[in-house]
Amino acid sequence: MATRKKTTKKKATRKATPRKAPAKKAGKKKTVRKATAKKAVRKKAVRKKAAGKKTAKRRTSREQEVVVDQIRKAAKEVHGDILKRSKPDLAFPVRSLKNVSYSTRKGYFEIGRAKKVRTLTVNTVKSFAQTLRMMGLSKELVETNDFATKRDAYYQSKNWEEAKFDDQSESDTVMDDIEAMFSIRGTSREQLRFIPDEHGGAVAGRLIVLDPDRETGEVERIDCTRFGSGAYSIPSTVEHLSFETKAKFVLVIETGGVFQRLQSHKFWETANCILVSMAGVPTRACRRFIRKLSDECKLPVYAFVDCDPYGISNIYRTLKVGSGNAAHLSQFFCVPQARYLGVTPQDIIDYELPTHPLQDVDIKRAKDALKNDPFFKTHKPWQKAIEQLLKMNVRAEQQSLARWGLNYVIDEYLPKKLKNKKSFLP
Amino acid sequence: MATRKKTTKKKATRKATPRKAPAKKAGKKKTVRKATAKKAVRKKAVRKKAAGKKTAKRRTSREQEVVVDQIRKAAKEVHGDILKRSKPDLAFPVRSLKNVSYSTRKGYFEIGRAKKVRTLTVNTVKSFAQTLRMMGLSKELVETNDFATKRDAYYQSKNWEEAKFDDQSESDTVMDDIEAMFSIRGTSREQLRFIPDEHGGAVAGRLIVLDPDRETGEVERIDCTRFGSGAYSIPSTVEHLSFETKAKFVLVIETGGVFQRLQSHKFWETANCILVSMAGVPTRACRRFIRKLSDECKLPVYAFVDCDPYGISNIYRTLKVGSGNAAHLSQFFCVPQARYLGVTPQDIIDYELPTHPLQDVDIKRAKDALKNDPFFKTHKPWQKAIEQLLKMNVRAEQQSLARWGLNYVIDEYLPKKLKNKKSFLP
Repeated sequence: MATRKKTTKKKATRKATPRKAPAKKAGKKKTVRKATAKKAVRKKAVRKKAAGKKTAKRRTSREQEVVVDQIRKAAKEVHGDILKRSKPDLAFPVRSLKNVSYSTRKGYFEIGRAKKVRTLTVNTVKSFAQTLRMMGLSKELVETNDFATKRDAYYQSKNWEEAKFDDQSESDTVMDDIEAMFSIRGTSREQLRFIPDEHGGAVAGRLIVLDPDRETGEVERIDCTRFGSGAYSIPSTVEHLSFETKAKFVLVIETGGVFQRLQSHKFWETANCILVSMAGVPTRACRRFIRKLSDECKLPVYAFVDCDPYGISNIYRTLKVGSGNAAHLSQFFCVPQARYLGVTPQDIIDYELPTHPLQDVDIKRAKDALKNDPFFKTHKPWQKAIEQLLKMNVRAEQQSLARWGLNYVIDEYLPKKLKNKKSFLP
Repeated sequence: MATRKKTTKKKATRKATPRKAPAKKAGKKKTVRKATAKKAVRKKAVRKKAAGKKTAKRRTSREQEVVVDQIRKAAKEVHGDILKRSKPDLAFPVRSLKNVSYSTRKGYFEIGRAKKVRTLTVNTVKSFAQTLRMMGLSKELVETNDFATKRDAYYQSKNWEEAKFDDQSESDTVMDDIEAMFSIRGTSREQLRFIPDEHGGAVAGRLIVLDPDRETGEVERIDCTRFGSGAYSIPSTVEHLSFETKAKFVLVIETGGVFQRLQSHKFWETANCILVSMAGVPTRACRRFIRKLSDECKLPVYAFVDCDPYGISNIYRTLKVGSGNAAHLSQFFCVPQARYLGVTPQDIIDYELPTHPLQDVDIKRAKDALKNDPFFKTHKPWQKAIEQLLKMNVRAEQQSLARWGLNYVIDEYLPKKLKNKKSFLP
């Protein structure tokens, strides 16, 4: 396979840019000439660079082949139906809470067997075509080792003539359908090269991230102990990353403030761990990063969040088992090995933490969790903890530990908690 | 000055933790013994580490001295008044749009001379005391080279007996007052060691960040070309950072998706620049980082955002000149050297970009900018551009360039734009 630049250019001419891109009418010629000159300079630079590197060949990974094969297989079935003169169809799992199950063994929300079938008819011809084009885009992205966000895909479709999307919500739905369809075959959206628009999640501590260059395959070793007061920002897609670490656990933290404190005071050094800042509900990239890290390095994951129904049922629950309306993602994105270090309702009493009263929305969320959430319904200790919180009718932020001194969290709270991991909630 | 751990401990006993922190009743003795053993181990580890390092002494920087002097001076004035048996007072600049001016020479929103005075009376005794304690906390933080978020400060106050805050909004107001008071003396909130709870902003490209360790002073060199597909995450406070770079400019980007594309394809390499992802309206830390980087390395800053009133008047305007209700921050946080690369209203025509119609909120925002905003009122080219946008009645996202191919933004749009910097909006 050629290097990226060549491949992209070829593809771009052949597929992704069927229409000519515009140039200003005035001074058009000049611009073109300039652009050509520029390209020559760039090519030279690329050549020079390539000569200076050891591993200039791009590898097509086994994973890329598997994904392309899956797309091809799905397309062939459609093609086969057409050749047999029967109506082709595509089947997608139903994406809703009703089609979700939870087992402690698997440890995450799992999508059920209910399916919706899209058969090619006069009425479905447009969305059928769009689905196939979107699969085609995915195949192209895998082959060129590139990626697209939901927005990118929407705007790309503007070249699909009759099959173009009028609104991004349409293209989002088709992408979600394709994702759900392939998730049953064990392929994630990120492997299809559709990546989220937001990245997010900062990392510091005893970890080396290995990141192969997408052009050359040369591996960058990113040492997360060497960021000073800053941190490593997780990229939008993490499938290509691997890890080296001697840390004992991963500590995932809700607020940027607490992360900054632990990072600036190098808590990861004394505790021999890896710190991850989620900054609220973790993004997909952040969750996938934690999951991959934990799976591949056999590391336990401890969550340190605010003691309120939002921290417990939105942040922690989503991290651990996934969310109801995106259960087709859970197998890739949830972190079943996560456990809840704190702040627990019991901590509020034991550490005499300053509190705020529960709001109506908190109470509603907590009661919902007890009544409707398969995760909390399965785990007795959680039911007790949430009931305790409701009875106390208060919530506490993780930063409330600062009442005992700004660094009490580092010097006392976390070391004490970590000595008694059995007390962590499931 | 001693190392942090010692200093913090001493301070903690003397000031920040006047009340004893709790221990579980059952097993109290055991826990304490355990904790002591743990501390011994930690101390050993610290000693070992210190011996292995070259520069184990902590420096009290000139900046720290200046800030402590300023706090002391303000406190002495109050103390002097009391000794003279007259009523002490503290004067704070009024923080509102009405007390703001804009000059193209300075390049940012500047706070005016209107002041509110808080005189010590029976009615103001509590907030007066709180203001002084908050200044005391700041002094302590500077001396111990530590920091506190708004939340940290609120919870710390729980030890201030009669002066404790009942609600975080009260402590936030006092902190904002102190910040405004010291801003007139040229000292920023970050120098007072009050840091934002959110960090944010990701960086990649031709930049080395120098970050001295807060304990040892040893400087970490963070090479932002070495993050693979990831990035450097900007810490909550950036005052202690310095930079080395041979880049020609800083490109700040609105969306994570476009940043990821430019980063993964190493646009910074071909364009010889530094990429910063703002992910929406930039955080304080992110703005301060860009400002410091631009000031110290004499680098121009180009903004690449969506072409809509939000991208123009919220994101870009805030980045460049600050925001109206926080004008006391502008001198530290705005980036007057920033210029607007795109997407411009003219780009929508020149590049035939797919658009969305303007919403009512967009139209209101644009008209507000033309009528009330001192920045847009000063710059004719901006008035023309916004009027053009209103006339076209559409908006375009930066990712809409993907209609011409996913990497059109890298291969064509940005290089073309960068060849004609004079076309950038002010």
